Amino acid sequence: MTPANSRVTVVGSGNWGSVAAKLIASNTLKLDSFHDEVRMWVFEEILPSGEKLSQVINRTNENVKYLPGIKLGTNVVADPDLENAVRDASMLVFVTPHQFVEGICKRLVGKIRKDTEAISLIKGMEVKREGPCMISSLISEQLGISCCVLMGANIANEIAVEKFSEATVGYRKDKETADKWVQLFNTSYFMVSAVQDVEGVELCGTLKNVVAIAAGFVDGLEMGNNTKAAIMRIGLREMKTFSKLLFPSVKDSTFFESCGVADLITTCLGGRNRRCAEAFARNGGKRSFDELEAEMLQGQKLQGVSTAKEVYEVLRHRGWLELFPLFSTVHEICVGRLPPTAIVEYSEHTPKFSLVGGSAQFF
Amino acid sequence: MTPANSRVTVVGSGNWGSVAAKLIASNTLKLDSFHDEVRMWVFEEILPSGEKLSQVINRTNENVKYLPGIKLGTNVVADPDLENAVRDASMLVFVTPHQFVEGICKRLVGKIRKDTEAISLIKGMEVKREGPCMISSLISEQLGISCCVLMGANIANEIAVEKFSEATVGYRKDKETADKWVQLFNTSYFMVSAVQDVEGVELCGTLKNVVAIAAGFVDGLEMGNNTKAAIMRIGLREMKTFSKLLFPSVKDSTFFESCGVADLITTCLGGRNRRCAEAFARNGGKRSFDELEAEMLQGQKLQGVSTAKEVYEVLRHRGWLELFPLFSTVHEICVGRLPPTAIVEYSEHTPKFSLVGGSAQFF
Repeated sequence: MTPANSRVTVVGSGNWGSVAAKLIASNTLKLDSFHDEVRMWVFEEILPSGEKLSQVINRTNENVKYLPGIKLGTNVVADPDLENAVRDASMLVFVTPHQFVEGICKRLVGKIRKDTEAISLIKGMEVKREGPCMISSLISEQLGISCCVLMGANIANEIAVEKFSEATVGYRKDKETADKWVQLFNTSYFMVSAVQDVEGVELCGTLKNVVAIAAGFVDGLEMGNNTKAAIMRIGLREMKTFSKLLFPSVKDSTFFESCGVADLITTCLGGRNRRCAEAFARNGGKRSFDELEAEMLQGQKLQGVSTAKEVYEVLRHRGWLELFPLFSTVHEICVGRLPPTAIVEYSEHTPKFSLVGGSAQFF
Repeated sequence: MTPANSRVTVVGSGNWGSVAAKLIASNTLKLDSFHDEVRMWVFEEILPSGEKLSQVINRTNENVKYLPGIKLGTNVVADPDLENAVRDASMLVFVTPHQFVEGICKRLVGKIRKDTEAISLIKGMEVKREGPCMISSLISEQLGISCCVLMGANIANEIAVEKFSEATVGYRKDKETADKWVQLFNTSYFMVSAVQDVEGVELCGTLKNVVAIAAGFVDGLEMGNNTKAAIMRIGLREMKTFSKLLFPSVKDSTFFESCGVADLITTCLGGRNRRCAEAFARNGGKRSFDELEAEMLQGQKLQGVSTAKEVYEVLRHRGWLELFPLFSTVHEICVGRLPPTAIVEYSEHTPKFSLVGGSAQFF
């Protein structure tokens, strides 16, 4: 092991963060170009037993709170001290709730190596009226380092038990760094590929939640697989069109990757956005999302509902509402301006729809 | 109504044919450019009541055998005489079982107008070693007329009850004719768009069945939505790559249409290919597909299993096996050379797989 070896720190230790640490730790042991030890920054918590979470992780090699029953690898070291956790690291993996990223970055300014590379596994950025607030850009700007993203059809608990899955790394320019991230994450059951399209990959991870709300409505209305497939397809097309309008560099092919079509399928088959939207439609829209969230999600908020609202603001602001009948209808249903059945009534509500029939014709 | 109006005949009256007649008949009544009456050729059968199927359809306005409970529209006229059914028709809709097309075309030679336009709704052509035997080409060559195709996520019974769905018309050159077919099929609940890619659209309708077998294996192994989404995505990519290798004119964008991603989703969620493959995997491959088909399908054969075999022959013949790990693995599992679990073990079995990670990189 030479000092030139890359040291990896995982910033975050929730469900997905712990699985990421496990994946990475299995590879650093095998690959000479990485330091064996993987540090994982833990937002310290006191467990009901009175012990500190970080200490229990280091003693048992399990994240007993967020990923119980899974050995992380003995080369994973939990560290509650952020500054210490990133010391000497040249590769930072960001996997915290999105609302904490900015604060964490502020604490890291001046504390990291200048040649550090970052990757964000965080889904669910905000879409502000001026455009989406990409988490990869936030990290990049705050810390003055480059930042890739990793997205895909990644249900953490399924990957934790080594069920086959895929993921997509999005990078801006540096293919060599992207390949290094692929090496670090790729295993026989977690197949990673890289595409040069940070924005496309990252937007997929957020916009899919709006489509999942639409898919949930279809489930609640009991319209069958045919209709659901149609809605998912229209949703995928709107994800692509929206991303390309905002970032002309976004590539069509990105939507064929795991971050695109596969993550969309997973999210529209399972997932809490779909589930709550199903309940909303079953109740004919008579119980609000706030009410259903409170009942079904123990205080968590639905990302799809808020993203739909944010996207709607962008569409209205830019005069694009008629180009995005699914996105706009989802929001109108969420706020009660349209009934859930409107999710399949495009031809009436959106006269321009047929003009954008083939996405290829439109762009 | 002038003689210049297009007369439409539906050649076939099964489940999907009857729904097609219903869709078309609702439009010919509304649109001036079509003759109101839609003739539907019926392969005559004697019903248990002793009556002829065509007579009962004309008396009740229902296809009591293949689409009971659905009114076809009083302007649909069933006709058991093929030659009479197509007389004066300028638009022929082919929607018979695929093994009957050739015989029907032979009977139609010299019996149709020279300016007749055809469209095929028939899924499941054979893929011979020399290449796929496209049904649209067969019709075109036999009758000396041009032939479009219509494919999509189209479960006939769901469209019959007017649940929202979409479809894709594939055309070769003549956009005007394609638009006419779109007009003829499009309704508020059945949204049709056209793409200039006959081969891409038609191949989707066949190759998706191979992917559905793979998805069924994943279901049988209880691997979860994540793995299933990954397998569907890899399958979609192989559909695209295979189609483009055989027909360089095939467009990527076709796979974002209803005939591509949407039909794939429907077929991998429901459908008999998926269902039998699930049973196959649950039994650990110990009961053959022949046995399961006999038990579960009342004598019908699974298209996916035979298509997988046909595709495998093409791949082997051309030296492409390693480029299509999913397609080839499906066949190897079907014939018992690999266990069902091999469906998720690409990295071991197909060393070249990672090289084709991003389809965009490969083509």
